[in-house]
Amino acid sequence: MKEHFSEQLEDLRRNLILMGGEVERQIQRSIEALTEVDAEKAAAVIANDGEIDRMEMVVEEQAVQLLALQQPVASDLRFLIAALKINNDLERIGDHAVNIAEGAQRLAGQKPFKPFIDIPYMAEVAMSMLKQSLDAFVNRDALLAKKVIKKDDILDDKNVSIIRELLTYMAEYPNLITYFLELISISKNLERVGDLATNICEDTIFIAEARWVKHHATELT
Amino acid sequence: MKEHFSEQLEDLRRNLILMGGEVERQIQRSIEALTEVDAEKAAAVIANDGEIDRMEMVVEEQAVQLLALQQPVASDLRFLIAALKINNDLERIGDHAVNIAEGAQRLAGQKPFKPFIDIPYMAEVAMSMLKQSLDAFVNRDALLAKKVIKKDDILDDKNVSIIRELLTYMAEYPNLITYFLELISISKNLERVGDLATNICEDTIFIAEARWVKHHATELT
Repeated sequence: MKEHFSEQLEDLRRNLILMGGEVERQIQRSIEALTEVDAEKAAAVIANDGEIDRMEMVVEEQAVQLLALQQPVASDLRFLIAALKINNDLERIGDHAVNIAEGAQRLAGQKPFKPFIDIPYMAEVAMSMLKQSLDAFVNRDALLAKKVIKKDDILDDKNVSIIRELLTYMAEYPNLITYFLELISISKNLERVGDLATNICEDTIFIAEARWVKHHATELT
Repeated sequence: MKEHFSEQLEDLRRNLILMGGEVERQIQRSIEALTEVDAEKAAAVIANDGEIDRMEMVVEEQAVQLLALQQPVASDLRFLIAALKINNDLERIGDHAVNIAEGAQRLAGQKPFKPFIDIPYMAEVAMSMLKQSLDAFVNRDALLAKKVIKKDDILDDKNVSIIRELLTYMAEYPNLITYFLELISISKNLERVGDLATNICEDTIFIAEARWVKHHATELT
């Protein structure tokens, strides 16, 4: 029975990783839809969100079943609760990919104002944070989790500077306000992806060190 | 022991309700800070967010303890898992109140462009959704939960019309772009509060009817 349980935990872990990979690809494709001005790619991201939702339900059902039938204690219990939270975080990152794709769709009729540099950079940082946060989670690697949390400052700073720049453009080119507003929204969505990867890291540190870092991120060493 | 367990569940339920009330007040006060152009009130909302975070940790700790020590099954297990999710939703609503208060703070130096009508109305709808979603949860009232979910359309529609109106103003008054952008952000934050109250309702229906409505909201009767 014990071996069976550990196999089921392993299966749950694998499903979370698969879901993380899929969510990462959704972010990637939503940004490509934007930079390549590709409405079809944007539509594909939106259509694929159902798959993320399906994966979320599978993981949730697995975790709830394991909680109900195996009645795990101590570290397995903490792991399952963290898995439930991370599952939710991944689904929310998927929603941000949809938001970005919807923005890309609305912008698809319009020639880009200038080449995209900062937003794809933010997306790269956000995706690497997501990937590393899941690596940290499956390996219970608190050190890596702490490193990832520090990266979030890059996204926060970049988001502020992008918004500042776009506000200047809005005042200069009032006929492009809607266009720039979409870009502000996309930048904010990427910033939120970083926050959610940070959540995953906090839960990882929690199960790795059995202490609580949430709401105390500034105290991290 | 069983009686003890039901008392602990009751205590957890009460703490969630207390937290819900506090979060509702945070939204209320953040909107007052905006409409009364009151930077001090805005600062108070931001300062009080630590209290919400503290409440979230208490509830989480309670739920995890009950899961670990009591090893509940069936409906109690579902209830505890729903409580963990709702706890997280409430904390996120608290974050939206902070976002609104931060916006109100930035706008506090500025005379309102026109009296606030739509945003306070959205806030009323969002707060009543929040309150009713928690009523539905504690009473396991799926019918009420479904009614609340339908209200979310009001917020979605209002948000779209507010943004449309503000975009027109932005083009007309480019020197007030930052001002209008803050209002768009506040409107979006209130719309998100409605989404989170909807989450609470979905979890309520889940434990009340032991079926899964998430991602199928349109199928609700």
